[in-house]
Amino acid sequence: MEPAIVSKNPKVTAVETYIKALTEHDLGAIDALFDDNATVEDPVGGDVIRGKDAILGFYKTAFSSGISARLEGAVRLAANHAVFPFVVELNPGNGEMRLEVIDQFTFNDAGKICAMKAFWGEENMTTP
Amino acid sequence: MEPAIVSKNPKVTAVETYIKALTEHDLGAIDALFDDNATVEDPVGGDVIRGKDAILGFYKTAFSSGISARLEGAVRLAANHAVFPFVVELNPGNGEMRLEVIDQFTFNDAGKICAMKAFWGEENMTTP
Repeated sequence: MEPAIVSKNPKVTAVETYIKALTEHDLGAIDALFDDNATVEDPVGGDVIRGKDAILGFYKTAFSSGISARLEGAVRLAANHAVFPFVVELNPGNGEMRLEVIDQFTFNDAGKICAMKAFWGEENMTTP
Repeated sequence: MEPAIVSKNPKVTAVETYIKALTEHDLGAIDALFDDNATVEDPVGGDVIRGKDAILGFYKTAFSSGISARLEGAVRLAANHAVFPFVVELNPGNGEMRLEVIDQFTFNDAGKICAMKAFWGEENMTTP
């Protein structure tokens, strides 16, 4: 018998695509995930970045720091949100830093991320 | 030498107190954590509960289901928020259920929780 095909929730797929894009420095994948008029607040309490050009610039800068990321638990799904714990590593071999983050993605009806909020603070940074 | 005393961030202490109160069914501890006019949205997308009486009623009902809880990762701190992944177990020995949740606490200047949002959906429930 063929194994049952369980179709994954598209919000979970978006999160997994995002984590992979962070690690592979894939700006095209980031572009495809976000709505043109999306906002990014990373970290929450900081400046809010608006629009695709500013968002792609933000990720380009992150990629230049040799970022990698991995999920650290289940993606929680509520209403039009996906919220997930993950770990980011920055600057490998050159003042490297580990950051524990929880992101909140809000999706529009087209399935694009229209708002991203990243919850982390200095208490969530460690250096090896 | 005495070990250095690191005073814990009070938002992290509040989260740890909350998780302990859920497991010990300690309504007094819940009462002390929340502002009188706080809101609770659990899950996000459902009804918003307003005010201390309604909130204590909500937790009393949860306690009657034999709830227990444990943190599942670091408490993320950003602006006046604490956001944390945890696991809840309900109905032990009687249709038990496991729920993976991320809560967002927002604190007022007095250090009380003025808003709680719980992110989880049916995809985050498992039965043994």
